[in-house]
Amino acid sequence: MALVTPRTLSGFKDRLPKEALAKTHLLNKVSNVFMNFGFVPIETPHLEYADVLVKQGSDEIQKELYRFKDHGERDVALRFDLTVPLARFVSQYKNEVDLPFKRFAIGSVFRGERAQRGRYREFTQCDFDFIGSNSISCDAEILQVIYASLVGLGIDEFTIWLNHRGILNGICEYCGIIEEKDINTALRIIDKLDKIQIEGVRAELHKELQLDSTRIEQLLKYTSIKQQGDSESFFESIAYMADFNESIKKGLDDLKALHKVLSSLQMDRDTYRINFSIARGLGYYTGIVYETTLNALKSIGSVCSGGRYDNLTRTFSKDKMSGVGASIGIDRLLAALEELGLLTKKATSARALIVCMDSTYFGYAHLLAESFRQSKVPIEVYPEISKLKKQFAYANTKGHEFVIVIGESEFSSKTLTLKNMTSGMQIERISFLKALTLIREDREEEIRI
Amino acid sequence: MALVTPRTLSGFKDRLPKEALAKTHLLNKVSNVFMNFGFVPIETPHLEYADVLVKQGSDEIQKELYRFKDHGERDVALRFDLTVPLARFVSQYKNEVDLPFKRFAIGSVFRGERAQRGRYREFTQCDFDFIGSNSISCDAEILQVIYASLVGLGIDEFTIWLNHRGILNGICEYCGIIEEKDINTALRIIDKLDKIQIEGVRAELHKELQLDSTRIEQLLKYTSIKQQGDSESFFESIAYMADFNESIKKGLDDLKALHKVLSSLQMDRDTYRINFSIARGLGYYTGIVYETTLNALKSIGSVCSGGRYDNLTRTFSKDKMSGVGASIGIDRLLAALEELGLLTKKATSARALIVCMDSTYFGYAHLLAESFRQSKVPIEVYPEISKLKKQFAYANTKGHEFVIVIGESEFSSKTLTLKNMTSGMQIERISFLKALTLIREDREEEIRI
Repeated sequence: MALVTPRTLSGFKDRLPKEALAKTHLLNKVSNVFMNFGFVPIETPHLEYADVLVKQGSDEIQKELYRFKDHGERDVALRFDLTVPLARFVSQYKNEVDLPFKRFAIGSVFRGERAQRGRYREFTQCDFDFIGSNSISCDAEILQVIYASLVGLGIDEFTIWLNHRGILNGICEYCGIIEEKDINTALRIIDKLDKIQIEGVRAELHKELQLDSTRIEQLLKYTSIKQQGDSESFFESIAYMADFNESIKKGLDDLKALHKVLSSLQMDRDTYRINFSIARGLGYYTGIVYETTLNALKSIGSVCSGGRYDNLTRTFSKDKMSGVGASIGIDRLLAALEELGLLTKKATSARALIVCMDSTYFGYAHLLAESFRQSKVPIEVYPEISKLKKQFAYANTKGHEFVIVIGESEFSSKTLTLKNMTSGMQIERISFLKALTLIREDREEEIRI
Repeated sequence: MALVTPRTLSGFKDRLPKEALAKTHLLNKVSNVFMNFGFVPIETPHLEYADVLVKQGSDEIQKELYRFKDHGERDVALRFDLTVPLARFVSQYKNEVDLPFKRFAIGSVFRGERAQRGRYREFTQCDFDFIGSNSISCDAEILQVIYASLVGLGIDEFTIWLNHRGILNGICEYCGIIEEKDINTALRIIDKLDKIQIEGVRAELHKELQLDSTRIEQLLKYTSIKQQGDSESFFESIAYMADFNESIKKGLDDLKALHKVLSSLQMDRDTYRINFSIARGLGYYTGIVYETTLNALKSIGSVCSGGRYDNLTRTFSKDKMSGVGASIGIDRLLAALEELGLLTKKATSARALIVCMDSTYFGYAHLLAESFRQSKVPIEVYPEISKLKKQFAYANTKGHEFVIVIGESEFSSKTLTLKNMTSGMQIERISFLKALTLIREDREEEIRI
C-alpha cells in the first residue's frame, strides 16, 4: 500500500503543544471573564445552508466561502464568521432566548483567502455580544469585559479608542458628504491614512468624491480629533460640535452617558479615550464603536474591536434586533503576549516529572503522582525505564520545573529525590510532604498564562 | 429583499445556553484532568486533504465523508475523527514532537450518516492518547484519567471493563478460528449478543464460520468470563487458560502487570473489572482494551472507551508507532449526568442579577458588580429600567440565585437590597460586604457542574 505524505492544506495551520497550550490558557481566561459577566456560550454548527451565510456577507466573503453540495445535494458552506450564525440563531429561537441575551462564542471560521503571511484560511474567532437592549449599560459592560480580559491576561498598558458612528456621519454631513455610499467611501479613504499618508488621503478624497480642498481640510480636521487629557475637559473642548447637527449631538450624548457609567468604576480611566478617526466595519455599526491597542505594541493593530449595531437579524426577519458586541483577536493577542514576555511557552502542562530506575517502582510512582495531583500539582510519570540523562532531557525539552527520581533506596524508604530543574539543586530521599512544600514554595511569582 | 428562513441543516444541532453551558463546564473539568496528568492539547484543522483522511477510514466512513473541491481544485474533506489527524500530525512533526507524547484534543468531527435520533452529522470528540511507549505505565495512566474524569464529574458508581485483544485472539485460536478475518467475524457476532440473543449468536456463528456446536459452546464459554470478586482470585481462577496458547498468556501477563500498578493506588478497586467479552474496534486495537459503563445507567452504553494500538501511523510511515488512548463520549455523558441529576442546567453563568429602578443608578450598579466580580461572584447588571416583575421573571427564567435591587434609598445610602430567589427571603438596605457574606454562605453544597 502506497504511503500518503502527511501534510496540511495551504493556509491551514497545526498548533504544536507549546502554542496550543498557550491558546488554551488564553481562551480559558477570557471565557472565565465572559462568564463572570453573565455571558453564556452557545454552539452552532460549522456547516450551514449556503443561503443563510451568503446574504449578509460582502462580495469578497462570498468569493471566499467554502461552499459545496452535501450528500443530499443541499447547497452548504462552512461559516465565515460567528456573527451570521448568531443572527440566524436568535431569529430561529426568538421564543426560547429571553432578551436581553448575552452570549459568547469561540470557534473556527473559514475563508478561502489568498494565502499570505499570518493570515489563515481557518482561524479562531472569539465574540461576545449583548443583544436586545439599546441601553448604555450594555455598551459599558462590553467595555468592562475588554478591560477585565486584558488585565486578566497580565496586560496593563492598553488603550480602548472610542468613537461613535453618529459622530462620523455628522462630521461627513457637516462637510457636505450626505449619501451613505459617499460617507463610506470617505471613511474608507481616511482609514488608509497610515498606508497612503496625508497627501494620498487628500488626493483620493478629491478624486473619488470631488471634494474641494476646504471640505477636505475640514473633514481631516474633525476626524483627527483625539482625547488628550481627562474626558470632562475633552467634552468641553468639543462641545461646539453638538451644534453642527443632530447626528453629532446624539453621538456626543451617548459617549457622555457611557463615560458617566464608566467613571463610577475602579476601572482605570486612562485606558479609554475618544478618537474620532476610529471607523470600524462601516456598514454594520450604528452607535459607539471601539478598537483596542496595546501601548507597547501599537503596530500590531487592534486586539479587540466592536461596537453597537442596529439590525443584527435583517437577513432573517423584519423585526429589528439591536445589540452591542466585540471580538477578541486571539491570534494577534497570542503573538502580542509572546512579544511582551507574558506567555510561558511550555510543551507540558505538568510541573513535575517522576522517573523510575526500575519498572517495579511504577506502582509507587503512580501513587506519588496521585497524591501530588490531589494536592493540585499537575504531574506525570515517565513511562519507560531508561537512562536518567534521557529522562532529564525529556523534562528539559518539555519544560518540567521538577524531576522526581525513584531509585531503590527511595522506593524502600518510601521517599523521593527532588531536583529543581531551574536551580539544578537536588535533595535526596525526602518525604512526599516535604517535596510538596518545596514545589509549592517555588511558585513565588504569579503564574503566567 | 426576500428574507431567508433561519434554519439548521438536517442532522446538525444548535446548543442553547443551558446545554452549551453544561457542556462547557464538562469540557473544562475533563481538560483540567488531562492537564493534571501532563496531557497537552494540540490543534489540527477541520479541513484536510481527502487522501489524508480516506486511507484509514472504513468504507462506511468514506461514504459519509464531507468531501469537495476547494478554491484551488484540491480534493479536500472535513475530518471524521480526531485519530487520523493525530496520526498525520505525529508523522508530519516527528522531529518536533518528543516521544513519549501525551496529547488531548476536543473538537467537532463530521459524518454524513443517515439522520437518526440522537445521532448527529457534526459531533464533539474528546480524545486523549499516550503515544510512543508500550510500557504498562501508559495503560495504567489512561485508566487513571478515566477514573479521575468521572469522579471529578461527581459520578461515583461506574465500572471500567477491561479486556485484552490477545486474549480474544487466543480464545478464538483455541476454538479453531485462526484467520484474522474469521476472528473479526466471530467477535462481531458475539458483540451482537444483546441484540440477537444467545440463540441468534449460535446460529450466526454456525452459518458464517461453519463452527460445530462444541466449538461454539467453547467460544461462548470463554468470552463470557467476567471478574466477580477481587482480581487476585480471578487471575487464579483462570490461570489454566495461560496454557491454551501464547496469545492468552501474553494477554493475562499484561492484565496482571496493569493490576499491579493500579492496586498500588488509592483509586477504588471496585471500579475496574476484567470482562472477556469486551471487543472494541476490532481491527485497530492490539493490547488492553476497555469500556466504561455507569452502574446506575448501564443501558446508555460505554461513556469512555479505548485501548492500546500498535500502528497509529501506518498510512503515513513504515515506522511503527504504538500507543494507548481513550475517547470520552461527551454527548452520552452529558445525557447521563442530566439523568443522574448531576447537571445544574441554567441559562446564565451569573449567580446574581442587579436591577436598577432608575438609569441614574447604573454607575453605582456597575461599581457594585465590579466589586462582586473581584470577590469571585459572577454577576450581571440588568441593562433596562423596567417593571420589577419583568426583571424578576428574567432572573427566574435564567436561573440567577439572587437579585439585587437598587432603588433611591439604596442608591443614596450606598446599600443594596438582596433577594434570595430560592427562599424568597429579601433583606433591605444592607452593605456590599454583608451581601457578599450572604451570597457566599448560600453555596453550602458543593457546586455541581
